[in-house]
Amino acid sequence: MIQKVNVAAKFQLFDDYWSPKIVGEVANLYLKTVKLNGEFVWHKHETEDELFYVIKGRLLIKLRDGDVTLDPGEFVVIPHGVEHLPVAEDEVHVLLLEPKTTVNTGDVSSERTVATLERI
Amino acid sequence: MIQKVNVAAKFQLFDDYWSPKIVGEVANLYLKTVKLNGEFVWHKHETEDELFYVIKGRLLIKLRDGDVTLDPGEFVVIPHGVEHLPVAEDEVHVLLLEPKTTVNTGDVSSERTVATLERI
Repeated sequence: MIQKVNVAAKFQLFDDYWSPKIVGEVANLYLKTVKLNGEFVWHKHETEDELFYVIKGRLLIKLRDGDVTLDPGEFVVIPHGVEHLPVAEDEVHVLLLEPKTTVNTGDVSSERTVATLERI
Repeated sequence: MIQKVNVAAKFQLFDDYWSPKIVGEVANLYLKTVKLNGEFVWHKHETEDELFYVIKGRLLIKLRDGDVTLDPGEFVVIPHGVEHLPVAEDEVHVLLLEPKTTVNTGDVSSERTVATLERI
Protein backbone atom coordinates (compact mmCIF):
# COMPACT_ATOMS: atom_id res chain seq x y z
CA MET A 1 0.00 0.00 0.00
CA ILE A 2 1.36 3.40 -0.99
CA GLN A 3 1.44 5.76 1.97
CA LYS A 4 1.79 9.51 1.93
CA VAL A 5 4.17 11.32 4.27
CA ASN A 6 3.31 14.40 6.29
CA VAL A 7 6.63 16.16 6.77
CA ALA A 8 5.66 18.15 9.89
CA ALA A 9 4.45 14.95 11.57
CA LYS A 10 7.81 13.29 10.91
CA PHE A 11 9.59 16.14 12.71
CA GLN A 12 7.47 15.44 15.80
CA LEU A 13 8.91 11.94 16.07
CA PHE A 14 12.42 12.89 17.16
CA ASP A 15 14.37 15.55 19.04
CA ASP A 16 18.04 14.82 18.44
CA TYR A 17 20.14 17.17 16.36
CA TRP A 18 22.40 16.41 13.39
CA SER A 19 20.99 12.90 13.03
CA PRO A 20 19.19 12.49 9.70
CA LYS A 21 16.22 10.08 9.54
CA ILE A 22 15.09 8.46 6.31
CA VAL A 23 11.50 9.37 5.38
CA GLY A 24 11.37 8.36 1.74
CA GLU A 25 13.31 7.16 -1.27
CA VAL A 26 13.17 8.01 -4.94
CA ALA A 27 15.35 6.00 -7.30
CA ASN A 28 18.86 5.97 -5.77
CA LEU A 29 18.26 8.86 -3.37
CA TYR A 30 16.96 9.16 0.16
CA LEU A 31 14.79 11.93 1.48
CA LYS A 32 15.70 12.62 5.12
CA THR A 33 14.43 14.85 7.90
CA VAL A 34 17.02 16.41 10.19
CA LYS A 35 16.98 18.95 13.02
CA LEU A 36 19.98 21.23 13.18
CA ASN A 37 21.13 23.47 16.01
CA GLY A 38 24.52 25.11 16.29
CA GLU A 39 27.50 24.73 13.98
CA PHE A 40 28.38 21.52 12.14
CA VAL A 41 31.82 20.63 10.71
CA TRP A 42 33.34 21.73 7.41
CA HIS A 43 33.11 18.80 5.00
CA LYS A 44 32.39 17.80 1.42
CA HIS A 45 30.92 14.78 -0.29
CA GLU A 46 33.29 13.42 -2.93
CA THR A 47 30.62 12.07 -5.25
CA GLU A 48 27.22 13.04 -3.85
CA ASP A 49 25.19 16.18 -4.51
CA GLU A 50 23.18 17.26 -1.48
CA LEU A 51 19.97 19.28 -1.39
CA PHE A 52 18.93 21.27 1.71
CA TYR A 53 15.29 22.36 1.83
CA VAL A 54 14.33 24.39 4.89
CA ILE A 55 10.97 23.60 6.49
CA LYS A 56 11.31 25.71 9.65
CA GLY A 57 13.85 28.21 10.95
CA ARG A 58 16.79 29.80 9.14
CA LEU A 59 19.86 27.93 7.92
CA LEU A 60 23.18 29.46 7.06
CA ILE A 61 25.40 27.35 4.81
CA LYS A 62 28.94 28.66 4.72
CA LEU A 63 30.89 28.01 1.54
CA ARG A 64 34.52 28.78 0.77
CA ASP A 65 33.50 31.45 -1.74
CA GLY A 66 30.36 32.86 -0.13
CA ASP A 67 27.44 32.00 2.11
CA VAL A 68 23.85 31.00 1.45
CA THR A 69 21.02 31.72 3.88
CA LEU A 70 17.86 29.65 3.58
CA ASP A 71 14.44 30.49 4.97
CA PRO A 72 11.42 28.15 4.91
CA GLY A 73 10.42 27.23 1.37
CA GLU A 74 13.94 27.72 0.04
CA PHE A 75 16.47 25.11 -1.05
CA VAL A 76 20.01 24.90 -2.30
CA VAL A 77 21.94 22.10 -3.95
CA ILE A 78 25.53 21.71 -2.79
CA PRO A 79 27.28 19.92 -5.66
CA HIS A 80 29.64 17.06 -4.89
CA GLY A 81 33.15 18.19 -4.07
CA VAL A 82 32.09 21.55 -2.64
CA GLU A 83 33.07 22.19 0.99
CA HIS A 84 30.27 23.48 3.17
CA LEU A 85 29.48 24.23 6.80
CA PRO A 86 25.84 24.28 7.95
CA VAL A 87 25.21 26.73 10.81
CA ALA A 88 21.90 26.97 12.68
CA GLU A 89 21.73 29.85 15.13
CA ASP A 90 18.46 28.43 16.42
CA GLU A 91 16.73 25.12 15.73
CA VAL A 92 16.18 24.48 12.03
CA HIS A 93 14.12 21.72 10.39
CA VAL A 94 15.58 20.57 7.11
CA LEU A 95 14.56 18.11 4.42
CA LEU A 96 17.67 16.58 2.87
CA LEU A 97 17.80 14.88 -0.50
CA GLU A 98 20.94 12.99 -1.43
CA PRO A 99 22.22 9.69 -2.84
CA LYS A 100 21.79 6.72 -0.53
CA THR A 101 25.55 6.41 -0.16
CA THR A 102 25.84 9.85 1.50
CA VAL A 103 27.31 10.06 5.01
CA ASN A 104 26.40 13.25 6.89
CA THR A 105 29.98 14.37 7.57
CA GLY A 106 31.23 13.43 4.09
CA ASP A 107 35.01 13.17 3.93
CA VAL A 108 35.40 14.01 7.62
CA SER A 109 35.10 11.45 10.37
CA SER A 110 33.95 13.05 13.61
CA GLU A 111 31.79 12.48 16.65
CA ARG A 112 29.03 13.94 14.50
CA THR A 113 29.26 11.10 11.94
CA VAL A 114 26.12 8.97 11.78
CA ALA A 115 26.90 5.78 9.92
CA THR A 116 23.55 4.02 10.20
CA LEU A 117 20.35 5.94 9.69
CA GLU A 118 17.03 5.28 11.30
CA ARG A 119 13.97 5.10 9.09
CA ILE A 120 10.92 6.83 10.55
CA MET B 1 28.27 30.65 -7.78
CA ILE B 2 25.82 28.49 -5.88
CA GLN B 3 22.34 30.01 -5.86
CA LYS B 4 19.46 29.16 -3.59
CA VAL B 5 15.95 28.64 -4.95
CA ASN B 6 12.80 30.14 -3.46
CA VAL B 7 10.06 27.73 -4.45
CA ALA B 8 7.14 30.18 -4.16
CA ALA B 9 8.99 32.65 -6.39
CA LYS B 10 9.42 29.97 -9.06
CA PHE B 11 5.65 29.40 -9.12
CA GLN B 12 5.16 33.09 -9.91
CA LEU B 13 7.10 32.71 -13.15
CA PHE B 14 4.54 30.67 -15.09
CA ASP B 15 0.81 30.05 -15.40
CA ASP B 16 0.41 27.04 -17.67
CA TYR B 17 -0.88 23.75 -16.28
CA TRP B 18 0.59 20.25 -16.58
CA SER B 19 3.89 21.61 -17.88
CA PRO B 20 6.72 20.83 -15.44
CA LYS B 21 9.64 23.30 -15.25
CA ILE B 22 13.08 22.27 -14.04
CA VAL B 23 14.20 24.22 -10.95
CA GLY B 24 17.06 22.07 -9.69
CA GLU B 25 18.99 18.85 -10.07
CA VAL B 26 20.50 16.42 -7.59
CA ALA B 27 22.56 13.57 -8.95
CA ASN B 28 20.49 11.97 -11.75
CA LEU B 29 17.20 13.55 -10.73
CA TYR B 30 15.41 16.77 -11.56
CA LEU B 31 13.35 18.85 -9.19
CA LYS B 32 10.46 20.43 -11.08
CA THR B 33 7.66 22.87 -10.32
CA VAL B 34 4.29 22.20 -11.91
CA LYS B 35 0.80 23.69 -11.65
CA LEU B 36 -2.04 21.22 -11.96
CA ASN B 37 -5.72 21.87 -12.56
CA GLY B 38 -8.28 19.29 -13.57
CA GLU B 39 -7.73 15.62 -14.35
CA PHE B 40 -4.60 14.24 -16.03
CA VAL B 41 -4.32 10.87 -17.83
CA TRP B 42 -3.79 7.42 -16.34
CA HIS B 43 -0.15 6.47 -16.89
CA LYS B 44 2.86 4.81 -15.36
CA HIS B 45 6.61 5.25 -15.62
CA GLU B 46 8.29 1.98 -16.53
CA THR B 47 11.56 2.64 -14.70
CA GLU B 48 11.22 5.95 -12.86
CA ASP B 49 9.97 6.57 -9.32
CA GLU B 50 8.14 9.88 -9.00
CA LEU B 51 7.70 12.03 -5.92
CA PHE B 52 4.83 14.52 -5.58
CA TYR B 53 5.22 17.16 -2.85
CA VAL B 54 2.31 19.56 -2.52
CA ILE B 55 3.16 23.23 -1.93
CA LYS B 56 -0.33 24.72 -2.33
CA GLY B 57 -3.81 23.29 -2.78
CA ARG B 58 -5.00 19.70 -2.54
CA LEU B 59 -4.00 16.90 -4.89
CA LEU B 60 -5.79 13.61 -5.34
CA ILE B 61 -3.73 10.82 -6.85
CA LYS B 62 -5.88 7.94 -7.97
CA LEU B 63 -4.27 4.50 -7.90
CA ARG B 64 -5.68 1.18 -9.08
CA ASP B 65 -5.87 -0.08 -5.50
CA GLY B 66 -6.76 3.10 -3.60
CA ASP B 67 -6.36 6.85 -3.62
CA VAL B 68 -3.98 9.25 -1.91
CA THR B 69 -4.91 12.84 -1.04
CA LEU B 70 -2.10 15.30 -0.44
CA ASP B 71 -2.32 18.62 1.36
CA PRO B 72 0.52 21.18 1.58
CA GLY B 73 3.57 19.74 3.33
CA GLU B 74 2.73 16.18 2.31
CA PHE B 75 4.40 14.00 -0.29
CA VAL B 76 4.03 10.57 -1.81
CA VAL B 77 6.37 8.46 -3.90
CA ILE B 78 4.75 6.60 -6.78
CA PRO B 79 7.10 3.70 -7.50
CA HIS B 80 7.98 2.86 -11.09
CA GLY B 81 5.45 0.60 -12.76
CA VAL B 82 2.50 1.86 -10.69
CA GLU B 83 -0.38 3.38 -12.65
CA HIS B 84 -1.61 6.70 -11.33
CA LEU B 85 -3.96 9.55 -12.20
CA PRO B 86 -3.40 12.98 -10.67
CA VAL B 87 -6.61 14.96 -10.15
CA ALA B 88 -6.70 18.60 -9.05
CA GLU B 89 -10.18 19.90 -8.31
CA ASP B 90 -8.70 23.39 -8.01
CA GLU B 91 -5.25 24.72 -8.85
CA VAL B 92 -2.46 22.82 -7.08
CA HIS B 93 1.22 23.68 -6.90
CA VAL B 94 3.45 20.64 -6.83
CA LEU B 95 7.16 20.01 -6.51
CA LEU B 96 8.10 16.91 -8.51
CA LEU B 97 11.24 14.88 -7.98
CA GLU B 98 12.07 12.21 -10.53
CA PRO B 99 14.88 10.82 -12.69
CA LYS B 100 15.93 13.09 -15.54
CA THR B 101 14.63 10.56 -18.07
CA THR B 102 11.03 10.93 -16.84
CA VAL B 103 8.36 12.09 -19.29
CA ASN B 104 5.25 13.53 -17.65
CA THR B 105 2.77 11.13 -19.29
CA GLY B 106 4.99 8.07 -18.85
CA ASP B 107 3.97 5.19 -21.11
CA VAL B 108 1.10 7.19 -22.63
CA SER B 109 1.57 9.58 -25.51
CA SER B 110 -1.07 12.30 -25.45
CA GLU B 111 -1.63 15.98 -26.11
CA ARG B 112 -0.51 16.40 -22.51
CA THR B 113 2.95 14.99 -23.21
CA VAL B 114 5.72 17.56 -22.72
CA ALA B 115 8.88 16.24 -24.32
CA THR B 116 11.21 19.18 -23.71
CA LEU B 117 11.18 20.93 -20.38
CA GLU B 118 11.93 24.56 -19.72
CA ARG B 119 14.40 25.43 -16.99
CA ILE B 120 13.33 28.39 -14.87
